[in-house]
Amino acid sequence: MREVGIIGVGHTKFGNLGRVTSRELITAAALEALEMSSLSKDDIDAVYAGLLSPDIFEHQMHAAPGIPDYLGMKNTPSTRLEAACASGGLSVMHGIIGVASGLYDHVLSVGAEKMTNLPTSHVTEALAMCADDIYEVAPGITFPGAFAMMARRHEHEFGTTPEMRAAVAVKNHKHAMENELAQFHKEITIEKAMNSLMIADPLTLYDCSPITDGAAAVVIVPWEVAKHHDGPKVKVKAFAQASDTMSLHDRPDLTGFMTTKIAARTAFERAGLTPKDIDFLEVHDCFTIAEIMAIEDMGFYEKGEGGKAALNGETYRDGRLPVNVSGGLKAKGHPIGATGVSQVVEVFKQLSGLAHERQLDDVTYGMTQNLGGSGSTIVCHILERGD
Amino acid sequence: MREVGIIGVGHTKFGNLGRVTSRELITAAALEALEMSSLSKDDIDAVYAGLLSPDIFEHQMHAAPGIPDYLGMKNTPSTRLEAACASGGLSVMHGIIGVASGLYDHVLSVGAEKMTNLPTSHVTEALAMCADDIYEVAPGITFPGAFAMMARRHEHEFGTTPEMRAAVAVKNHKHAMENELAQFHKEITIEKAMNSLMIADPLTLYDCSPITDGAAAVVIVPWEVAKHHDGPKVKVKAFAQASDTMSLHDRPDLTGFMTTKIAARTAFERAGLTPKDIDFLEVHDCFTIAEIMAIEDMGFYEKGEGGKAALNGETYRDGRLPVNVSGGLKAKGHPIGATGVSQVVEVFKQLSGLAHERQLDDVTYGMTQNLGGSGSTIVCHILERGD
Repeated sequence: MREVGIIGVGHTKFGNLGRVTSRELITAAALEALEMSSLSKDDIDAVYAGLLSPDIFEHQMHAAPGIPDYLGMKNTPSTRLEAACASGGLSVMHGIIGVASGLYDHVLSVGAEKMTNLPTSHVTEALAMCADDIYEVAPGITFPGAFAMMARRHEHEFGTTPEMRAAVAVKNHKHAMENELAQFHKEITIEKAMNSLMIADPLTLYDCSPITDGAAAVVIVPWEVAKHHDGPKVKVKAFAQASDTMSLHDRPDLTGFMTTKIAARTAFERAGLTPKDIDFLEVHDCFTIAEIMAIEDMGFYEKGEGGKAALNGETYRDGRLPVNVSGGLKAKGHPIGATGVSQVVEVFKQLSGLAHERQLDDVTYGMTQNLGGSGSTIVCHILERGD
Repeated sequence: MREVGIIGVGHTKFGNLGRVTSRELITAAALEALEMSSLSKDDIDAVYAGLLSPDIFEHQMHAAPGIPDYLGMKNTPSTRLEAACASGGLSVMHGIIGVASGLYDHVLSVGAEKMTNLPTSHVTEALAMCADDIYEVAPGITFPGAFAMMARRHEHEFGTTPEMRAAVAVKNHKHAMENELAQFHKEITIEKAMNSLMIADPLTLYDCSPITDGAAAVVIVPWEVAKHHDGPKVKVKAFAQASDTMSLHDRPDLTGFMTTKIAARTAFERAGLTPKDIDFLEVHDCFTIAEIMAIEDMGFYEKGEGGKAALNGETYRDGRLPVNVSGGLKAKGHPIGATGVSQVVEVFKQLSGLAHERQLDDVTYGMTQNLGGSGSTIVCHILERGD
């Protein structure tokens, strides 16, 4: 397969965006990405779209052809991918495969969700369907409950504390202060996080990511084209995907995800890199415990040591391994299908010097981890600075 | 990209299958395909799954990881694709891309739907969501209405008659008599079809495909592997995909699909073939008028001449261009996500001499056309006999 690069990114504001459709949000993000890439809509050979459930949220299935339709790209193949909260990661990955294979020269990969139309209880029920319906959803589990069990087990095995989880939320809220597209611009304290509403013991409100509308887009081209592009460009070093059992009871361990371990290891092997080479991460902090497990499972911390990272300041923007400088799902927001694409957009911006107030210094490699369900799908990407 | 072949297929009975999940149906079809391929589950590098809406039909989103889970393939990447009734075609196509690119050596592409759980009115409403929600669904259109408008316009422009459409239903019901996996084993007459319940004027009950449960699976490998396989094998000559506007009012013509024309033309170009080279077809007869439009738009009949094909006997199993020898969606049944895979399974069986009573003589090339929504997605495949 040939080498691949990204030459354009787009990203809407994340938040409660009112009366707008995911198709319109995608159009806005895609036009921004196309403008940066200097490509026209007619240059695009295929569209991939990560969308969790436009049927449930917007009464619109078969949403993918609506994207080239609204963009005025008549007849461009357009494909929807769904893997719960990892739908966006798979959209980017399949855009990369399309170009790397030689099938397409220019692919637009997008992701979006319009979630705030529905009452919170409906959203929670819709999201719960991404767990195993027979063994988990029917008996009554929702994702806060599933991740609460993981948090409890992580506490039991490794002594991880509520304060450590709260520190992840404090860090990501602080990071989001410098991301104008983030849903929240509000600093919080460890005390405030720990004393917030109990959602699913031991997880409180500030351990949980919010309900969000938004979209993100990237333009993927062969690296031979990207490297001559007169504008920002980033090289795709590796992607990887892994699946696991739907039910938690079928897994030997609740303190981490085998999928994250496999996807990260595969990505490192394909890239010829190790965790030591990676300068910063965007990981899937749908709950604070998920960020802690991610940085452990990806190999950046020993198992059980991840809880100390945010508390010690190591994963802040000025720490030794910045994690979720965008604000993460926790504070940037989590429009399901958009999240995996948004992570790649943030890594692109950091590697291209386009991250404004939150710009990291001297970064060469950034990595993403995008999680679906209770970790039944994981998608990782490693990107390299292109200039 | 490297050449690709298929060395195993599986297919459940289609019909009202009672208390069973799509995951279980897929497991059955996949095990049959794996057995034919002589590969073990551990050889499979990736799974692709076409499923329209396991969320609405079965309260299960994020269904893809459940497939390797049930098959005991721990951690194999598994990806769901949704493009309305073309979801299965995209599952096969992305399996082919995965192997052709060199990324994977062995891919399992599956498709399924479990639809008979819901009342017919709920299914009709769910399917309607595959049209444009804003411009078509909200004002009240469902697919019988959309295809009725196409049928009316085809009558107006070309003099296509209700008898010609009925002849498609009669033919496909006759074909299904020799397919033990088909939903219906019941011959009908033109009179019976024309006098059946009016669904959406001018379409009667027998112009419409049924609501069906079922699954199908194929095993895709490099042609270099397939050609040495001690068992049935078929070569993938080409695939192609096209999209169109969601709304019918944005199209210049209602008597055919630009997407079918583009996808078929692209597939012929990639295969280095013309319609004259193709021995038989499996096309998307969700409504009888759709089969007529398909054989025109694919280039097998002049525009306006397709209506005569079944009436003249030309598209029967013993005719000059057999179409839907499996029974088609009309009589084999139409479990949405399974259909595109099922078409490829039928072409494989015909090219491998495995079609039992309905076996065609001396066939070298077979072609599929799989349609999503009101033609907003089309996927075509051309397969070549491999022995």
